[in-house]
This record gives sequence, structure tokens and C-alpha cells, in this order.
Amino acid sequence: MRRIALILEYDGGPYCGWQRQKNGLSVQAVAENALKRLCGEEIALTGASRTDAGVHALYQVAHFDTESRIPAEKFSFALNTLLPSTIRVTGSLQVRSDFHARFDAKGKSYEYRILNRPHQSALKANTHAHLPTPLDFGAMAEAAALFLGRHDFSAFMAAGGSAKTFTREMTASTLQKNGDELLFTICGSGFLYNMVRIIAGTLIAIGQGKLAPGCIPRAYQSRSRLDLGPTAPAHGLCLTRVFYDSMA
Amino acid sequence: MRRIALILEYDGGPYCGWQRQKNGLSVQAVAENALKRLCGEEIALTGASRTDAGVHALYQVAHFDTESRIPAEKFSFALNTLLPSTIRVTGSLQVRSDFHARFDAKGKSYEYRILNRPHQSALKANTHAHLPTPLDFGAMAEAAALFLGRHDFSAFMAAGGSAKTFTREMTASTLQKNGDELLFTICGSGFLYNMVRIIAGTLIAIGQGKLAPGCIPRAYQSRSRLDLGPTAPAHGLCLTRVFYDSMA
Repeated sequence: MRRIALILEYDGGPYCGWQRQKNGLSVQAVAENALKRLCGEEIALTGASRTDAGVHALYQVAHFDTESRIPAEKFSFALNTLLPSTIRVTGSLQVRSDFHARFDAKGKSYEYRILNRPHQSALKANTHAHLPTPLDFGAMAEAAALFLGRHDFSAFMAAGGSAKTFTREMTASTLQKNGDELLFTICGSGFLYNMVRIIAGTLIAIGQGKLAPGCIPRAYQSRSRLDLGPTAPAHGLCLTRVFYDSMA
Repeated sequence: MRRIALILEYDGGPYCGWQRQKNGLSVQAVAENALKRLCGEEIALTGASRTDAGVHALYQVAHFDTESRIPAEKFSFALNTLLPSTIRVTGSLQVRSDFHARFDAKGKSYEYRILNRPHQSALKANTHAHLPTPLDFGAMAEAAALFLGRHDFSAFMAAGGSAKTFTREMTASTLQKNGDELLFTICGSGFLYNMVRIIAGTLIAIGQGKLAPGCIPRAYQSRSRLDLGPTAPAHGLCLTRVFYDSMA
């Protein structure tokens, strides 16, 4: 028995999210079915991050155990012949037998993309949240910096998460502007359920003048979801990396 | 009678190119049909660039004449309610009655995107040419600079073009590397039929070690297509701008 880790890239658009569900096609189920065809055995795939419906991933990590003798680095090539083009395995490697994609993750990074111009885009509609009215970039960038460091993120959480602790440390949180595109990058020790989308939605509300950056330290104190902006649309979000101390 | 110019963005994937054709759906035909519904009259749309099947545009310009009384700046909003999501009108304005989107263009810029890594991408397959084996970036960047200035581009042309002169001036030609992505940007006074795709294909052949940068000055002299690389895939190419001295 070997434990193998996959690096996965996917377009979240066609899927009900990472996690297998009764109704709807999940990335996990599609990947497990491809692994079953490849290995000739039932395979359970454990992902690092339970991305929501519509959320993309450039670098999701998932592990599984197998009796098959396929060389570890060949799984990526073999799986890509069986998977739809919206899911690609960009790497595969053997990991230690107690490696856990989710519990061993030391950090994750996400990007949130916004297109801020009057008209929707033909090429970026699936990867950018479209906001037609001008956003106050200065206020948003000032607010983005307030996520850095260790904070109680209880307010930045939707119902349905399984977390028992709510303090997380953010090591990067920056907003960049390139023409009519805004790119928000956040990197941290961990993220609560819907946390990045609530952060992005709060930044957007600040950019629209509906909230002021002061709502963020206030929410750290109040732990109230009501102090923050709405949850931003899923399709602007992309999981860009999962970090581990060691995998092998 | 007023003359209106549209700025168009489109995903070239679903279309047989800009130009109306007997077999296949063109961007021009889809946009003309939307204009006909909107204005209640037959509309002929003249585009600045006849992009090939699969080629994208972030900034195509097209003009038409109309008797309708719709305010010029409202055409973009109205057309976007009638067009498929793969075509967006990002601006509309009244132009002088003798403005010509194609003949008045003083220059154009294009981007060609390459993904250089073993595995295809789930998110970039429609916008990047995928090349799985490592490319020699240094040789490609050196070659890219050789397009700058005035040259006889006769060799960089596919059969089927309507050009009568073959000298063009390139004002920008740069290759940038960002991780596993290469971005080639070229800006010039005009482009012959398939010229950017032949330039990109030649850069790729140089990156693969199949040609040396010296093939480019040689082709300026020989005017022979045989001195150059193959035509690069259409979907890596995007028209990013058309330049005019004045439109109004």
C-alpha cells in the first residue's frame, strides 16, 4: 500500500464544489471515478480544501492510498487521459504513509479577482467578479492590510463549518490594481468556512463606500457577521496553493 | 445617418473568426444580427481586424451606419442584452462620418500566451498555447527583439491575404516570463495575414532549438516562408488594441 498525493487544477464552474455530494457533480467524485478506472479498486480521495461550488483551484492537494503498481509520477499523465478538460492533475508524487492533505496543511493561499468596469467581459466572466460601478481602490487596499497578523476570525465565517478554533494568522494580504482588474491575494495558516469570500465581500463593500475599513477591527472584537459585507461571488475565488512542512 | 464605432471583446473559441462566412458562425454575423434587432434595419459592420477562427479580442473596433436615434453610448448596454456572453461590447461612440475602422487604423497590438509545463491547464486551455517541453526563454527573448523596427514581412504571411505592400513597422515586441507562462506582446503599424501566429510559431521553434534567431533576419532577406517556424495555434492569440489618430 502506498500513499500518493495529487496536485489538481480545476475550473470550479461546472462542479458543485470539491466535496462529494448526493445532488451534483463534485470534483472529488469525478477524480475518484477516474482513479477507480485507473487502479481497478475503490479509491477515497482526501482534499486539502473543500472549495465551494464555482470556486477554482490552481493548486489543490489531495491524497489517496492504492495497491496499484503505477509509478507515482505517472498518475498525473494517466489521470489526465481519463478526466474532463476542466480538471487537470498537474503533478503526482508518493508521500509518507501518514501524510494528510488536510490536517498537515500549514497554510493556504487564495486569489480573488474583480473586474471593475461598466461592461462584463467575454473572456473573464468565469474567473472575475464583475462590479460595474467604480470602487475606491485606496480604501480597499488600506482595509486589505488589516487582515495581516493573528486575529479571531469568528465573524468571517458562514454557518456549516466544522472548525473548533477561530484564530488564524494571515501572512500576506494585498490588493493590486492593473487597469480595470483588481487582484486580492491572501495567504494564511488556515481559513474558516467561506472566510475568503466574506473577506472579499467586505473589501468590495468598503470599495463601494457601504462600509469603512474600521469594520474589520470591530468585527474581530464583536465576532459578529453583521459587521461585515456580503459573501462575494464564488467564481472570483481561486485556491492558488497549499503549503506543507514536508510531504515525503 | 450617423456612424457609430463599437469596441468589442470576444472569446474566439466558438466562432469561425471575425469575418462573415457561408459555413460557420462569425462574430461579425452575430453582432450584425443583434444590431438589426436593435435598430430595425439592415446593418453592415466593418471590423478593424479580420481575426481568425479561435483568435480572441480584448479590443476589436468596428463601425456601422444607422438611422436609429439610440444615443451612441447606449449601444453597448443595449447590444449586451442581445449578444451571447462570449461577445461583449465594452464601449460605443459616435465617430466622424468618414471614419473607417480598418483603413484608419494606425496600429494594432496583440498578445500571444504560452503555457510551458508538462500538463495542460484546466483554466487556461482556451487562451494559452500549451507546450509541454521546456522552451529556451533566452533565445526566444533575443529573437523577439529582432522584430522591432521596419522590415519586409513578406515571409511572415499565409496565402489568402489582400495586402499589396509588405513592409511594416513594429514599435514593441517583448517576451515576458511569469512562472510557467510566457507572454509575447507585439505592437505595430499593421500585420499581414497570419503574421502574428507565424511570428509566435517561429519564436516557439526557436525556443525548441529547431531554429536559431538568425532565421528572422534571413527571412527578411529571402522573403521565404520556408525560413520560419510553423503557424502557432490560434487560441493563444488575442487582439488587445487598435490605435487611431482620431475617431470623432
